Amino acid sequence: MNVDRIAELFGRDLKVINVGLEAFADNLVELGVEVQQVDWKPPAGGDTRILALFDRLAANASQDIDAANAEAVARIMQAKPTLIDIGVASDVVPGMHNKLVLHAGPPVAWQNMAGPLRGAVIGGLLYEGLAGDAAEAEELAASGEITFDPCHHHDAVGPMAGVVTASMPVWIVENRSFGNRAYCTLNEGLGKVLRYGAYSQEVIHRLKWMAAELAPVLQAALKRRGPIDMKNIIAQVLQMGDEGHNRNRAGTSLMIRELAPHLVMLEEPKEKLARVLTFMHENDHFFLNLTMPSCKSTIDPARDIEASSLIVAMARNGTEFGIQISGLGDRWFTGPAAVVDGLYLPGFSAADAARDIGDSVITETVGIGGFAMAAAPAIVKFVGATPQDAMTFTRRMYDITVAENDTYQIPAMDFRGTPTGIDLFKIVETGTLPAINTGIAHKDPGVGMVGAGLVKPPESCFTRAFEAFAERYGRCT
Amino acid sequence: MNVDRIAELFGRDLKVINVGLEAFADNLVELGVEVQQVDWKPPAGGDTRILALFDRLAANASQDIDAANAEAVARIMQAKPTLIDIGVASDVVPGMHNKLVLHAGPPVAWQNMAGPLRGAVIGGLLYEGLAGDAAEAEELAASGEITFDPCHHHDAVGPMAGVVTASMPVWIVENRSFGNRAYCTLNEGLGKVLRYGAYSQEVIHRLKWMAAELAPVLQAALKRRGPIDMKNIIAQVLQMGDEGHNRNRAGTSLMIRELAPHLVMLEEPKEKLARVLTFMHENDHFFLNLTMPSCKSTIDPARDIEASSLIVAMARNGTEFGIQISGLGDRWFTGPAAVVDGLYLPGFSAADAARDIGDSVITETVGIGGFAMAAAPAIVKFVGATPQDAMTFTRRMYDITVAENDTYQIPAMDFRGTPTGIDLFKIVETGTLPAINTGIAHKDPGVGMVGAGLVKPPESCFTRAFEAFAERYGRCT
Repeated sequence: MNVDRIAELFGRDLKVINVGLEAFADNLVELGVEVQQVDWKPPAGGDTRILALFDRLAANASQDIDAANAEAVARIMQAKPTLIDIGVASDVVPGMHNKLVLHAGPPVAWQNMAGPLRGAVIGGLLYEGLAGDAAEAEELAASGEITFDPCHHHDAVGPMAGVVTASMPVWIVENRSFGNRAYCTLNEGLGKVLRYGAYSQEVIHRLKWMAAELAPVLQAALKRRGPIDMKNIIAQVLQMGDEGHNRNRAGTSLMIRELAPHLVMLEEPKEKLARVLTFMHENDHFFLNLTMPSCKSTIDPARDIEASSLIVAMARNGTEFGIQISGLGDRWFTGPAAVVDGLYLPGFSAADAARDIGDSVITETVGIGGFAMAAAPAIVKFVGATPQDAMTFTRRMYDITVAENDTYQIPAMDFRGTPTGIDLFKIVETGTLPAINTGIAHKDPGVGMVGAGLVKPPESCFTRAFEAFAERYGRCT
Repeated sequence: MNVDRIAELFGRDLKVINVGLEAFADNLVELGVEVQQVDWKPPAGGDTRILALFDRLAANASQDIDAANAEAVARIMQAKPTLIDIGVASDVVPGMHNKLVLHAGPPVAWQNMAGPLRGAVIGGLLYEGLAGDAAEAEELAASGEITFDPCHHHDAVGPMAGVVTASMPVWIVENRSFGNRAYCTLNEGLGKVLRYGAYSQEVIHRLKWMAAELAPVLQAALKRRGPIDMKNIIAQVLQMGDEGHNRNRAGTSLMIRELAPHLVMLEEPKEKLARVLTFMHENDHFFLNLTMPSCKSTIDPARDIEASSLIVAMARNGTEFGIQISGLGDRWFTGPAAVVDGLYLPGFSAADAARDIGDSVITETVGIGGFAMAAAPAIVKFVGATPQDAMTFTRRMYDITVAENDTYQIPAMDFRGTPTGIDLFKIVETGTLPAINTGIAHKDPGVGMVGAGLVKPPESCFTRAFEAFAERYGRCT
């Protein structure tokens, strides 16, 4: 463009399209120029090292990666998570034994555990009768006699602290398309509960009742009812204002409907049946512990696909946030667990909050939870956002996923399928992080729930995973 | 504007705002002119006779009318519809007796009844044992021995044909703020059911079972449970994808949750309890017969307010659509019932459809149902529309209502209160008619449901009511 033409250009009435940095546009707007702002960030935040890794992968393996991710997400779509039974952890969870305590998130040693997880471990040991009081339990936990393992290493998931011990009852969800199973404890309710790190007599007493009465009654009702198609029920709850992570009122209601006609037929004292129905009725998070193993059983067949960059697990232990990548086996990539931005129960504030914790983010990994927030506008009051935020969260997630779900749909978005199958590449390229909504535990052991809110994973775990992926799949040019 | 200035005007680059008739704008657009179209229609469609009546009212009574409508809608907001009991119609419905058949809509003689209403009357007489077969029932109905009365004349409402006979069980909803009560039968399910005009053995048998087993069991469970705050539950279902008229899945689920823990405690054979729970579980319209009397009990205290132009009843008998106005007592203003624009069940088409029928439009009168369609995007598949249509329907209804509900809210519209309290004046002035979604019955007696869709009331009933209002409240100048 020669000088004359530039002069000519600026002689005209200009309409400007500004790409990227908004400051340029702001200046023009001040001068009365009509500007259309286009949001744009350089790929990978302009990090030349990461961009070089992209080049390395693009030159060598990109076709394989696309095909591998297509296969991974196809397996997610084909999944048929089906609730088949309830069992005792030591009987059904692979590798479970009396001295093993499962917990949420990536691996973490007792010494590094956050307050709520320590509290839940103490509670788990008290519950199993392995310790007589909290001090004994802490001593035992530190002694090396107890093994700690992530739930994810045993086909299980656990909300918040996610502690599972040998004699706890667990839901059994089978993916009927692939034959794999997933396990999760039964939900205890809100407030002072084990998964938020509480371990008082009241907490242990409730857990004992759940094992002695709740689980056997539900198991018998489920046996009469027959297997329940969880994919169908989750699809329905997204049409009923739930997103399956922090709002589960519709799901809990539908489960009660499914089980009540069979529950009433059991040869049990009616007081017992009433206690079971009342417990479910009074706990709208009852269904969370069913969406979680449903999602776990859905995504597990997408693991271990050569060259797939799909995220097959996101999980937090209260200290670290970790992810696993389909093409990178069982290796965890971690970063520090974040502080949750949320609303607090009366009497609590951000100063009381533990960091992000729990396996419940398995829901987001399969396209529900925070990824489906637009389906649950009522949830925004619970996590301190607006219905418009909910739409925005969901829309952004399409930028980092490889497919739109063929079963889980968002009515308010013209029944568009939820953003499903998180691609590590897309996160690193766009800098957009997965949207997660979550509960908040007290930072100290023994207290319990203090609030709920929105949280972002640490960017570092995705960068690390990407580097490992490039090392594994990108050859040097 | 002189000729020079006009010439100057047209010499410039014009940006045009076109108000009203779009054809003017279309021409300009073709010529490449930038046009902003503003939707506008002359008040009352430009009908000078109606406009003269507006003037007459404005000159004499407008202050009274605004205050009267404010009082009417305040009573709607203050309502506390509460489910208190189930009773037998002849015991509890005012004026009910053995030779009385209540029906939906405004008054209609046997000779003028539409097919589904005739079918339901036949079924009602068979159910009461007043006739041995359909022919006998028709003869009896025509004999003059049976009295026919609108449900609305007996504090009751009935979906579709709305037939209530003496021995049928009815829900009793009390408005705890005003002490008035409303009644409605229990919902039979979909398909071949009395309210859609079916009267086969299967239909009568089901009704007998409902009276002998369903109603007494639910009554006993409700007695143990205690009164249920229906306003609270309806507010919740609007957050769960129901609109309370054609979608009631959340409401039905919540009712099952409320009652199941008490139902299981009854001293009854468990098979009986299982039948009751299964019946509710298999019928997602179960809750419709609870929203209806809740809405009826809500709006009845807004009746008979001097100078109020609020619509206190809309109802159809399959032949006519009728409305009642607060300031005009019990007088009905009617027009021909319309054909429903909808989707049909397999094997049926528009040729099979009866005209618009039922008292269920009481829901729209109180700001839910079609007025809250934006809360129930999933319903659009059922009535043949899009989620965007649902938003549009709700938005338009703000033009013809006097308030936004302080309890019933639409999550997808930033928790805006539903459009509540339909003002006759606003309908006549804007030409905007209430949005109603509804089921479709077969036009012949004895068949049942054939589809569901959207329908508009006839404009004439509003014009007639307006004329009567002007005659009553507007003095000649």
